[in-house]
Amino acid sequence: MTFKITLAYDGTDFVGWQRQASGVSIQGLLEDALRGLEGRDVAVAGAGRTDAGVHALGQVASFRLERLIEPAALRRALNAQLPFAVRVLEAEAVAPEFHARFGARRKTYRYRICNALVMSPFERRYAWHIFGPLDAEAMQHAARRLEGTHDFASFRTTGGTPRTTRRTIFSSEVRREASMVIYEIAGDGFLRHMVRAIAGTLVEIGRGRRSPRAMADLLMAGDRSKAGATAPAEGLFLVAVEYGDL
Amino acid sequence: MTFKITLAYDGTDFVGWQRQASGVSIQGLLEDALRGLEGRDVAVAGAGRTDAGVHALGQVASFRLERLIEPAALRRALNAQLPFAVRVLEAEAVAPEFHARFGARRKTYRYRICNALVMSPFERRYAWHIFGPLDAEAMQHAARRLEGTHDFASFRTTGGTPRTTRRTIFSSEVRREASMVIYEIAGDGFLRHMVRAIAGTLVEIGRGRRSPRAMADLLMAGDRSKAGATAPAEGLFLVAVEYGDL
Repeated sequence: MTFKITLAYDGTDFVGWQRQASGVSIQGLLEDALRGLEGRDVAVAGAGRTDAGVHALGQVASFRLERLIEPAALRRALNAQLPFAVRVLEAEAVAPEFHARFGARRKTYRYRICNALVMSPFERRYAWHIFGPLDAEAMQHAARRLEGTHDFASFRTTGGTPRTTRRTIFSSEVRREASMVIYEIAGDGFLRHMVRAIAGTLVEIGRGRRSPRAMADLLMAGDRSKAGATAPAEGLFLVAVEYGDL
Repeated sequence: MTFKITLAYDGTDFVGWQRQASGVSIQGLLEDALRGLEGRDVAVAGAGRTDAGVHALGQVASFRLERLIEPAALRRALNAQLPFAVRVLEAEAVAPEFHARFGARRKTYRYRICNALVMSPFERRYAWHIFGPLDAEAMQHAARRLEGTHDFASFRTTGGTPRTTRRTIFSSEVRREASMVIYEIAGDGFLRHMVRAIAGTLVEIGRGRRSPRAMADLLMAGDRSKAGATAPAEGLFLVAVEYGDL
C-alpha cells in the first residue's frame, strides 16, 4: 500500500529534510520509525527538501508498506515514535503511482521577518529579525515582479545543477501584520535556496538599498552574484504542497 | 536612579524567575548582567515569581543603579548580554519608591490549551495538549464564578504560607480560538500555582468530569485536595502587570 502523509516540523534542531552522513534529519527519523513498523528498510520521498533550520507546516511525504495498516493507526504509530518537534498531521492511503516529490504541482513557502526594535523571544526560532525600517510596500511591488514563468538562475544556490532554472510562480506577495513582514510565494517548483535568496533581496529593497525595479533586472541578469544575500533559514516555512489538477 | 523594565521570556529552559541554588533563573541572568554594568551587586525585584517553564510576555522588574544611564541604553546593554530567550522590551526611569512586586495592582495571566488531535510542533513549548473534546462554554461558566473577592485556599500549592489566601479577581474568562482554548485571569495577586490549579480544574470541567458549578463549591471548601491537578507549566504566560490607580 502506498501512503501519503502530511507533516509539520520545527526545523531548529535538525540537519534538514534529507538524510545526511551525520546529524538528525526528518527523512531519517521517518525511515527509522517505519523500519520498526515494517521490519525492513522503507524509502521515504519528500515533496520539498527543506534545509537545516527550515520549518514545515505542511510537508508531504510518500512511501510503500507491505504491512496492512489503517491510515489513522499509521499516524498514531509514527507520532508515538517521532520527537514532538515532528508531527504527522494526516495519513492517507493513495494510488500506487503517487510520489510526493515528482507529483507535486504547487508548493507554497512563507518567509517571516520580525520588524521590531526588540525581537520577541517567541519568534527567535521562527523569524529573521530586522530592526531598522522596512518599506513593505516597496517589497510588495518587487515581489509581484516574480509572478509568471522566468529563469531564476539569479536566485539559485551556487553548486546546484538542476536540469533547468525556469520556474513558474503563481503568486508572490508581501504583507505586513503588526510587526511581522510576511512574504509568501507559490510556484511549480523552487531551486535550492531560491526563496531565501529572494527574501534576502526583498529585504535590501525594503531597506531602500535597491529599487523595487531591481527585481526584474535580476531575473534578466541570470547571475547569482547580483542578487541579495541568502536570508537565514529560521524564517522559512514550507506551508503546503498540492497535487493533481489545480 | 530607579529603573522599571518590562520583559518577555520563553521560560522553557530556565528554573523560573527566582534565583535558585542551581540552574539558570531570569532574576539571576538580570543580576549578573547588571553587576557587569554597575560594578557591584544589584538586587532585582520581579512582579511575578514565575515557576520553571512558565513564560512571560510582560513581566516587570525594578532595581536601583548608581551609574547614570539612559533607559534606552540600559535596554540595549541588557539585551546585548541576555540570551535571546529573554528580552527587555522597555526600560524607564521611575520614582525611587517604585517597587515591581509591592507596587503591582493588577496582574494578568493566560493559560493556553491546544485542543487538537495532533499538537502543532510550534505549540509544544507553549501550550498544554488535550486531544479529547473540551466544552469551552462549560469552562467559561465555571471561570466566571471566580470573579470577585474570595478565599483561594483551594487553589494554592501545599507548602506555601501566605499571610492571607484572599484575593480579588477582576476578570476570569475562557475563549476558544480555532483549536486553542485560552483562559485569561486578572487579579490583584495570585497564590503560588493558583492559576495552574484553576486551569487544571477548568479542564476537568471541560471534559465533563465535574459540573461548572463545582467551582463555587471549591471556593467554599478551602481544601486544595478537592480541586483539579496542577496544569503543566508550559501553557502559562504572565501577560501584564499594572501599577498605580486602576
